[in-house]
Amino acid sequence: MSDTLKNKKIVIIGLGLIGGSIARGLSSLQLAGEIVAVGRNEAVLQQAKNDGVISSFSTNIKDVAADADIVVIAVPSLTVENTLLELKSVVSENTVITDVASVKNAIVEAAVNVFGEVPENFVPGHPIAGSEHSGYSASTVELFQGKKVILTPMENTAADAVSLVTALWQVLGAEVINMPVDRHDEILAATSHLPHLLAFALVDTLSQQGESEEIFRYAAGGFRDFTRIASSDPQMWHDIFMANGEATVKALDSYMQDLERLRAAVLSKNSEELMTTFKRAKVSRDKFLELFENRSTE
Amino acid sequence: MSDTLKNKKIVIIGLGLIGGSIARGLSSLQLAGEIVAVGRNEAVLQQAKNDGVISSFSTNIKDVAADADIVVIAVPSLTVENTLLELKSVVSENTVITDVASVKNAIVEAAVNVFGEVPENFVPGHPIAGSEHSGYSASTVELFQGKKVILTPMENTAADAVSLVTALWQVLGAEVINMPVDRHDEILAATSHLPHLLAFALVDTLSQQGESEEIFRYAAGGFRDFTRIASSDPQMWHDIFMANGEATVKALDSYMQDLERLRAAVLSKNSEELMTTFKRAKVSRDKFLELFENRSTE
Repeated sequence: MSDTLKNKKIVIIGLGLIGGSIARGLSSLQLAGEIVAVGRNEAVLQQAKNDGVISSFSTNIKDVAADADIVVIAVPSLTVENTLLELKSVVSENTVITDVASVKNAIVEAAVNVFGEVPENFVPGHPIAGSEHSGYSASTVELFQGKKVILTPMENTAADAVSLVTALWQVLGAEVINMPVDRHDEILAATSHLPHLLAFALVDTLSQQGESEEIFRYAAGGFRDFTRIASSDPQMWHDIFMANGEATVKALDSYMQDLERLRAAVLSKNSEELMTTFKRAKVSRDKFLELFENRSTE
Repeated sequence: MSDTLKNKKIVIIGLGLIGGSIARGLSSLQLAGEIVAVGRNEAVLQQAKNDGVISSFSTNIKDVAADADIVVIAVPSLTVENTLLELKSVVSENTVITDVASVKNAIVEAAVNVFGEVPENFVPGHPIAGSEHSGYSASTVELFQGKKVILTPMENTAADAVSLVTALWQVLGAEVINMPVDRHDEILAATSHLPHLLAFALVDTLSQQGESEEIFRYAAGGFRDFTRIASSDPQMWHDIFMANGEATVKALDSYMQDLERLRAAVLSKNSEELMTTFKRAKVSRDKFLELFENRSTE
């Protein structure tokens, strides 16, 4: 598995939390031949070079991508299309391209817009790992350890390309799973995009109320954890909801139905319905936690 | 401050997370004369005695409460009225009574039902501290360190009684704040009861969907933290929503309006509204976190 990356030139476009963590992970393993970063902020790129995390850098994709073995696109979702457009003019089909965006239908559409169809050497991907903190300064060497990475290869995607991207994630400690594009967007809408929308909305609702400072003063640990994801990068989440709005609204509608039901149960003091719901939720959540903790310590 | 509790007999009714943590905190300080627990589960009470956390115990309030200086009622919200009824027949006005329920209007009503009016020696209280874990086994010696405790004394509440209850919480490391009953219920509905309802509902919605196991398999750290409070004690939260339903539904309605607005913004790809909302929420949440962390390390 580690031989697969030997002497390879890996170009990472976007050195934020995810791109930076890929670079840190790879450089710590000293497996790849060359790790090159492309970004807009030269100070950050220079910092990464000084940290020994990348071999070299550029602010221009065209200067460094032509002879890359793998290009990892780690920019906000809505910027992927432009990045693909720039890549189109320089890379050949010998370069494997992958991305890390949290939405996959929109990325496949972007690829079709740019190339006419999803190229055989493009493997859409999404590491389910992150943090409410963003940017290179938040990146860590072990971000992907024990985490899941979903790849959504198309019918025409080259098997070699999928193998190479799989190897890349596996050396970083991740478990790689393939699934259809729609299924990815549906699952992520339910488990990630919807909770982010709910958390952003709750903090926003409270902050718009009079004396919101006083309200926040009495909020405790439960509130802190519930709203942690509302400290996430607004740009990234703006892009995700612009790109995966349909699946998110579908999950939201099903959730709001459940909320309406609970609202009625609270108003009518329907003791049985409240108990049944809370017990069922606790069982499910405890089961999820068990699953999650076993996974993280594997 | 610590002198105030010297030689006092403190009776704690309900040795769960809160009652147990009060007993642990007090016994570790060796300030009180006597710490007596009342509960239903003799094995737990015996365990606490073996742990050196309480001086003695009983399963019957009437056997131990008569000569108490302070009685702390730490049972689920809807059980407080029955507890007050039992206390009524044994304690005099020389015993200060307080409670720890997360709802205060309902407790005041319970006191009126039992005594005809809220007795001068009863100080309604609520420590804003907890955990998704419950029971004596989850109790800790430092649960109230750096936390806030809200007391909602009435016009006729004896100043001496308020002082004594304040001293009790202060020796446990808490900051004590007085506020009106309605204000307490409003603030807690927004910062605690509503988030719990939302978290229970989300886990329940997802668990009711086909292939929910698969959905949970891809949920990550954001989901874990967002839903932590859905692992809370169903009985406790059932009681809270039964008791503070009106204020919670008011907060929920204001939240659902905000959700509807965001839903429309997502559907219409209203870029500006999404960015504005997420940025505003992130600023508020980061500000809350700063406040919270300063508070906890004081």
